[in-house]
Amino acid sequence: MTTVPPTIDAVNQMIAEHFPGSNNTCTELGERFAVARRDVTDSEIRPGGYVSGPSQFGLADAALWYLVFTAIGRIEPMALTSELSIRFLRPAQGSVLWARAELESAGRRNVVGSVHVWCDDRFDKPTATAQGTYALPL
Amino acid sequence: MTTVPPTIDAVNQMIAEHFPGSNNTCTELGERFAVARRDVTDSEIRPGGYVSGPSQFGLADAALWYLVFTAIGRIEPMALTSELSIRFLRPAQGSVLWARAELESAGRRNVVGSVHVWCDDRFDKPTATAQGTYALPL
Amino acid sequence: MTTVPPTIDAVNQMIAEHFPGSNNTCTELGERFAVARRDVTDSEIRPGGYVSGPSQFGLADAALWYLVFTAIGRIEPMALTSELSIRFLRPAQGSVLWARAELESAGRRNVVGSVHVWCDDRFDKPTATAQGTYALPL
Amino acid sequence: MTTVPPTIDAVNQMIAEHFPGSNNTCTELGERFAVARRDVTDSEIRPGGYVSGPSQFGLADAALWYLVFTAIGRIEPMALTSELSIRFLRPAQGSVLWARAELESAGRRNVVGSVHVWCDDRFDKPTATAQGTYALPL
Repeated sequence: MTTVPPTIDAVNQMIAEHFPGSNNTCTELGERFAVARRDVTDSEIRPGGYVSGPSQFGLADAALWYLVFTAIGRIEPMALTSELSIRFLRPAQGSVLWARAELESAGRRNVVGSVHVWCDDRFDKPTATAQGTYALPL
Repeated sequence: MTTVPPTIDAVNQMIAEHFPGSNNTCTELGERFAVARRDVTDSEIRPGGYVSGPSQFGLADAALWYLVFTAIGRIEPMALTSELSIRFLRPAQGSVLWARAELESAGRRNVVGSVHVWCDDRFDKPTATAQGTYALPL
Repeated sequence: MTTVPPTIDAVNQMIAEHFPGSNNTCTELGERFAVARRDVTDSEIRPGGYVSGPSQFGLADAALWYLVFTAIGRIEPMALTSELSIRFLRPAQGSVLWARAELESAGRRNVVGSVHVWCDDRFDKPTATAQGTYALPL
Repeated sequence: MTTVPPTIDAVNQMIAEHFPGSNNTCTELGERFAVARRDVTDSEIRPGGYVSGPSQFGLADAALWYLVFTAIGRIEPMALTSELSIRFLRPAQGSVLWARAELESAGRRNVVGSVHVWCDDRFDKPTATAQGTYALPL
């Protein structure tokens, strides 16, 4: 089990290693939050110019993953999504997608967090909100 | 459709009318949040002295209902829970249960909110977190 | 950790011990399913004569609990709801509430199941559907 | 509002039109169910050879969309995911991902369904289970 301290650089290096070609990056990491960012590609755009739901889910899931690292104090690639529920609040239009995850609780088995997703700089107009659980290796 | 302005008193009067004998009360109402409170009764206590999950769900649901009123600007008893997901974070011990709902979005059809539940004055130690959707009459 | 074989009688005896006065009973237990029943009381009825959402949540949660016992092969009172999401499908009217939980997966840490809730004998008209996770003591 | 009858061919033609390059196809449509299939691409594979969670979410969402068409009797591209919760049950390994959605309820405003996701021909070993709501245009 690695114990790399979860800095932004370390998270992004891990993403590059494990997901070569991923559009996701970690842009902020706090004691109880993490922010993920993704340049939207054409294949993620739906008719009408909207960012697809699964793309938003994917970035919310990524932000929760980064949150796990900061919550438990180490990069833990084997933390796995146990469950995630998402609600879509309004159409998502823009070229950059953001997700900010906040810590609800961290235990020995699970980390629970809430996530907001938005486009460009409209963080006050979330396009989706989610809550989910990551399971930690025991 | 009533258009009673959603003050704390008006919400509590509505609760008393529609749910005589209910332990739930509304204690705070803001532009984008609502707080619900409930005196825990013996029948809600589980072995070990813990407040039951369904009790926590029930108060979270009540807080979301009050949130709907403030979000749409009127007491609307016919707003109905469409879906609600809840995560239990730690054991709930105490004699008073609280739930605070925050607005995620309000549209013509739905109101979406997030809720924290805690016991006594330990709001920094939520026992449950939830997200859900209320459907508005059209 | 008790290893009482999870028969219907053993489950109901456990309910009587742990939840004296509970209206919930277990009426069926199969290898991968469990059925819970509850006589609806006046305090669970909402304006219009509908069974409340939290009552339906509570019975769904109970059915999942019984499912855990049959899935892991023992009565395990310390199995706890980790998360549960519920969707309300239609108004619930009737004097008896039912919930049937079906197994999705059982592992060392968690049991996941899906639940349907209905009134009286209208099992073809579910009033709610839910999915949730119980955490097992490790 | 189009009223194309929701045959498998019509659904796949709609996918091809609205999502050129999509790997998703509809393979079965019944009165109350729909099956979606997707050839897994390299970019969807995670370390260890597992199909990513967001890919599974995406196919579950697609199966629910096809279910909406058969449930309401017409191809309705403007039906939008309102909320979706997913639970991951076991590692997903394989080259083809499947999702089968079953109808829970269809109303004027919403369609609710449950979905199982699996790999290759192991439909008895679901890798994920989900429930969600699609909102219909009013």
